Amino acid sequence: MKLISLIEQIKLKKSYLCVGIDPDLEKIPKHIRNQEDPIYSFSKSIIDSTVKFAVAFKFNIAFFEAYGIKGFISMEKLIKYVKNKYPNVFTIADAKRGDIGNSSDRYAKAFFENFGFDSITVSPYMGRDSIEPFLSFENRHTIILALTSNSGAEDFQFISSEGKKVYEHVIDESKKWRGNENIMYVVGATKARYIEKIRKLTPDTFLLIPGIGAQGGSLEEVSSLGINKNIGILINSSRAIIYASSDEDFAKKAAEEAKNIQIRMEVILKEKSII
Amino acid sequence: MKLISLIEQIKLKKSYLCVGIDPDLEKIPKHIRNQEDPIYSFSKSIIDSTVKFAVAFKFNIAFFEAYGIKGFISMEKLIKYVKNKYPNVFTIADAKRGDIGNSSDRYAKAFFENFGFDSITVSPYMGRDSIEPFLSFENRHTIILALTSNSGAEDFQFISSEGKKVYEHVIDESKKWRGNENIMYVVGATKARYIEKIRKLTPDTFLLIPGIGAQGGSLEEVSSLGINKNIGILINSSRAIIYASSDEDFAKKAAEEAKNIQIRMEVILKEKSII
Repeated sequence: MKLISLIEQIKLKKSYLCVGIDPDLEKIPKHIRNQEDPIYSFSKSIIDSTVKFAVAFKFNIAFFEAYGIKGFISMEKLIKYVKNKYPNVFTIADAKRGDIGNSSDRYAKAFFENFGFDSITVSPYMGRDSIEPFLSFENRHTIILALTSNSGAEDFQFISSEGKKVYEHVIDESKKWRGNENIMYVVGATKARYIEKIRKLTPDTFLLIPGIGAQGGSLEEVSSLGINKNIGILINSSRAIIYASSDEDFAKKAAEEAKNIQIRMEVILKEKSII
Repeated sequence: MKLISLIEQIKLKKSYLCVGIDPDLEKIPKHIRNQEDPIYSFSKSIIDSTVKFAVAFKFNIAFFEAYGIKGFISMEKLIKYVKNKYPNVFTIADAKRGDIGNSSDRYAKAFFENFGFDSITVSPYMGRDSIEPFLSFENRHTIILALTSNSGAEDFQFISSEGKKVYEHVIDESKKWRGNENIMYVVGATKARYIEKIRKLTPDTFLLIPGIGAQGGSLEEVSSLGINKNIGILINSSRAIIYASSDEDFAKKAAEEAKNIQIRMEVILKEKSII
């Protein structure tokens, strides 16, 4: 998917919401658990009910992989359904892959070609040659972990050298890599005060911002700091939306939660004179 | 698998060789490609022919994931075959996973419980809470990327702060984590001169050392620097063994390559008075 199409969709839907699909058999409504493919049924209902308010869906690959081959079958069905039914939706494989070149090349093919995701999250620890294989796909987007939303982010991402922290080195270095036009970065909403700094390092790049809702980040704060002239941010919410209710009304409640966020995003986009 | 059993196996087989299983349909012998499950058939033949000379097998998950659901089915069949037929072999899922806590928990269950691997490689970028879920499994081993064998390793792992490089921070910090007795580290053979330093930081931990053979590291050099009183190293070779021949004799040639390495390892273990 072209970046320009994503930007158009944001303006059209007045939303830069990404809904995170973390299907958990212990959390999904009881009446779905006995269906033939509960992971698929649940996720599909969530997508159908929230797609009006969201421009992107982030598949948390761990949650599919946890169910082994069955989980992968559900994931494949689900991504095919989304690509077919909602071709204008931006799809993210939240896989956090990264390996030596010939292995990263395999992961890139798996997610971009076989499954057909528009983007994938990757870990930068192994450096340039572990990420360039992903960057070589045109109109596919590689979302590099820069500053993550979890508490452990501080262990290594904040190590400081030559006046820059590791996550700043990651941004600075990756800007030099082949295919850098296909880079986005993950920046946790729980680290909002760093977004201003990150925008100076990389004013034009899209940021994928998880960590509002269950993890505690503020939508208004990160939006105010992160939005650039092309919007430039996607804000993800997973649990607060998809597990808004564990009853038969789960899809309706998820839609309500997504709509609430979309309305706040519309206000912000108008304040910024983007729409 | 208990660490003590791995050490016993090393002494018994006079080998600390790990064979890397990177099945690539474009490289495996032509006469296998038309079989029903070529990935499984090829990998199984390699394992059967080299298991006499190797104590561990490292499944490169990218190479299975590249073939989608089919690849996962092959992988599941293969790991079940190995666990059943060769229960004393140490199995490694070379997956390089790592995510926020509740997602890492999923990956841990997928690889340790569903597939039944003895160990998994993980990326430390997201810090403590991204790795502790793996460490909580008893007698399962979490192999943290410290200093990798690829050229990109220098981009971020060598960033220096307070007299220590990032990979040294990773080793020092991770030693404080809950379940640290289940940690091993990845150290590339191409970075042999750093192994001495790493041994000072972590004298007792097992190191998984890829990068001899195709990537150019020296078996004798890394062995001399890395071996401790409990041996403490596994040396991986993938392509040089499994693609030693692309003809019908591929399994025999793979066994010869593995045996050549085992013989050199036996000499080293004797020189060190370990056997």
